[in-house]
Amino acid sequence: MTIDAVLAHVDDNLDAALERLKALVRIPSVSTDPAFKDDCQAAADWLVADLASLGVEAEARQTPGHPMVVGHAGDGGPHLMFYGHYDVQPVDPLELWHHDPFDPIVEDTPAGKVIRARGACDDKGQLMTFMEACRAWSAVKGDWPCRLSFIFEGEEESGSPSLVPFLDAHAEELSQPDLALICDTGLFDRDTPAITTMLRGLLGEEVTVTGPDKDLHSGMYGGAAINPIRVLARIIASLHDESGRITVPGFYDGVDELPASVRSQWEGLGFDADGFLKAVDLSEPAGESGRSVLEMIWSRPTCEVNGINGGYTGEGFKTVLPSRASAKVSFRLVGRQDPFAIRRSFRAMVRDALPPDCSVEFGSHGAGPASVMSTDDPAFEAARRALSDEWPNEAAFVGSGGSIPIAGYFREVLGLPSMLIGFGLDDDQIHSPNEKYDVRSFHKGIRSWVRVLDALAR
Amino acid sequence: MTIDAVLAHVDDNLDAALERLKALVRIPSVSTDPAFKDDCQAAADWLVADLASLGVEAEARQTPGHPMVVGHAGDGGPHLMFYGHYDVQPVDPLELWHHDPFDPIVEDTPAGKVIRARGACDDKGQLMTFMEACRAWSAVKGDWPCRLSFIFEGEEESGSPSLVPFLDAHAEELSQPDLALICDTGLFDRDTPAITTMLRGLLGEEVTVTGPDKDLHSGMYGGAAINPIRVLARIIASLHDESGRITVPGFYDGVDELPASVRSQWEGLGFDADGFLKAVDLSEPAGESGRSVLEMIWSRPTCEVNGINGGYTGEGFKTVLPSRASAKVSFRLVGRQDPFAIRRSFRAMVRDALPPDCSVEFGSHGAGPASVMSTDDPAFEAARRALSDEWPNEAAFVGSGGSIPIAGYFREVLGLPSMLIGFGLDDDQIHSPNEKYDVRSFHKGIRSWVRVLDALAR
Repeated sequence: MTIDAVLAHVDDNLDAALERLKALVRIPSVSTDPAFKDDCQAAADWLVADLASLGVEAEARQTPGHPMVVGHAGDGGPHLMFYGHYDVQPVDPLELWHHDPFDPIVEDTPAGKVIRARGACDDKGQLMTFMEACRAWSAVKGDWPCRLSFIFEGEEESGSPSLVPFLDAHAEELSQPDLALICDTGLFDRDTPAITTMLRGLLGEEVTVTGPDKDLHSGMYGGAAINPIRVLARIIASLHDESGRITVPGFYDGVDELPASVRSQWEGLGFDADGFLKAVDLSEPAGESGRSVLEMIWSRPTCEVNGINGGYTGEGFKTVLPSRASAKVSFRLVGRQDPFAIRRSFRAMVRDALPPDCSVEFGSHGAGPASVMSTDDPAFEAARRALSDEWPNEAAFVGSGGSIPIAGYFREVLGLPSMLIGFGLDDDQIHSPNEKYDVRSFHKGIRSWVRVLDALAR
Repeated sequence: MTIDAVLAHVDDNLDAALERLKALVRIPSVSTDPAFKDDCQAAADWLVADLASLGVEAEARQTPGHPMVVGHAGDGGPHLMFYGHYDVQPVDPLELWHHDPFDPIVEDTPAGKVIRARGACDDKGQLMTFMEACRAWSAVKGDWPCRLSFIFEGEEESGSPSLVPFLDAHAEELSQPDLALICDTGLFDRDTPAITTMLRGLLGEEVTVTGPDKDLHSGMYGGAAINPIRVLARIIASLHDESGRITVPGFYDGVDELPASVRSQWEGLGFDADGFLKAVDLSEPAGESGRSVLEMIWSRPTCEVNGINGGYTGEGFKTVLPSRASAKVSFRLVGRQDPFAIRRSFRAMVRDALPPDCSVEFGSHGAGPASVMSTDDPAFEAARRALSDEWPNEAAFVGSGGSIPIAGYFREVLGLPSMLIGFGLDDDQIHSPNEKYDVRSFHKGIRSWVRVLDALAR
């Protein structure tokens, strides 16, 4: 029995699949903001119900944070575990959205139809490609391709604090699968599917510098009192040297040069670095000098400031000399970089840079190492061929600048390898206003999973 | 006829005077925030009515911003013009206030009774010392000490954008007086009154750096795209050298060393620099090395960052690489420093520091030069003696770190000299939560103005 009938079922039922995606997207499950706690629960409940409609026994299991949705189905054949996340990024700045971020609309664009909303791509749209592939398969074949498990997380956008404890507590149940499938990455380009085999890790730090014990009048104290914004600015400015290298001591321990074979494969991809930058109104790569843009975003570590705040930031002017200033600083990690060692080194560097009378408090927003997959596993080549059958171009093994620490956690806690396949595009504006997902990505994504499930289940 | 009866009237009517001050303080006239526009009008109207109750013909004259209250009274003798401002600073962070900032309460403290509210000192309490002195004088004597004019501004805390055009448009009317009296400064200490003869100027700038044209995902673009927070931090860090000197080219043009006579007078004041810093939990002066704290705050120019904002600053974490970052930067100016030349030089320096792909926008929040009064005018010595009669210690001629550009505007636009007398204390927490004014400052402030009016009217 071929999969042609399953693929045809996908094609014939695309509108209904889009309506289901819209229903999920309407739930504003912003995990990082406690105001949306009930919405995260609602999204988890929605997924439990949707899995039940497929005949999958599932439940939303409580954690100290947002619930974890877990379900199991099928028997026989290899055991695959699918992972996605139902939480989304905050929507601010809200005024830059052209419509309500949680009221999804399907728009015609020059590049085809898109569904536009927060989470339309990351990760609700991606997650639903797999759900819809399973739905089509079971509708047509009346059975599952193999043993399947599902795990949907609600804290991916806020550092996954509950994930490792949860995996650890349920290790016997969750280490049964042979391979994890993760749908949270992108196509290489519109016509070239990709399996992501290198993922950067992420270390998130919050730094709050305090000087005077209260906000002061800059006329009365200005010149004599230390200004924590100036102190913080000086620390941030010191994190990179003139060549763009990061100055945290020991930061590059475990960072390897790219193997020649990978370098030549990447060079063969014909990546349009100028176009990549031009898409966001930039013309020059801003990373380490002497590195290609693909290296900068796939295989080199970074240090970025994701937010800074201090003093008076409202309308008009206030001659305040503030008591405190804070910044959110994140590091993208590669190779064997140790996030905990870098955290220690970063904090020591900041403490050493403090002038007299200043103190610092640190907050932690997650620490996940980089992941490098073993493409020697024949499942990777089988999946690559299956993807190549669906899309115009051959599928590629690529790196990713984003951090999906889940792959590292699966390996470390469950001993489980991961395969990352996704259908996002660079212009999807995930984490930005007006996020979208191409309907083509959604449609061919569902078809891709049908093919990959068929290939892996053999 | 001596002033003893007027002083006794002040003493006997202090409670009623306090009630009037409370009524004015209850009006939340925050000038910098458009949400309080009607309240600024209400404060102006309140003052017009209060002046009318003294028999002063006054009116609230409209400006492009908040109204200017102008009134005239009396004839004969010297012509004095009193200036105060009815607008107040914003109250944030509101959570640090122990009660509603606009619900004034009189509290007992170890140092005596205080009235606590936003504006209790700056400048409503100070302004009302003069009003109450006039009220007592006219109640007891049935006449005015001399010709008096009143001008109350509503935009002092937001850079006085309407003031110079207003003075210019009414120059014939407002240049009639011989001397301006400004009540917006402090005592030197609890027992030592002061006439402020050196005032720092203020240049306020808003700097917004834009990199990518939208917020980006730091995983997708981190490492390749320029980060405007990092750019802004580097610019801020470059504004001071290691010795604390400001690096804006030409910044120190017009900054003179303190004359030896002034330096020795200041040294004689016995200023408690350690206590001044310790009051805000600091131990080391943070300004230019080799300068005393009094120099740092009275006679040396500064550059401070009063606010900074960029990227995600809410709860939790967002791996955004922001499109923009902005800072509010202010310069306190001394001597003959030219605020407009410094603005040009600062902006050129920022532009020169921009990496490729970054642009900058500037906003202006006022530009006022420093003021140095001529203490050779015999009125200054007469006022100094009058103040010395009221307080335990001799009055001093002092500098001030704060900027009251009004004195410069009066001189430039109206050709009018200014005398600055005020009764604030360093612990009044003006511009901070829980602002207060000592009832003793209010009471003896009223009595001081009775004495000064008497001295200047002779």
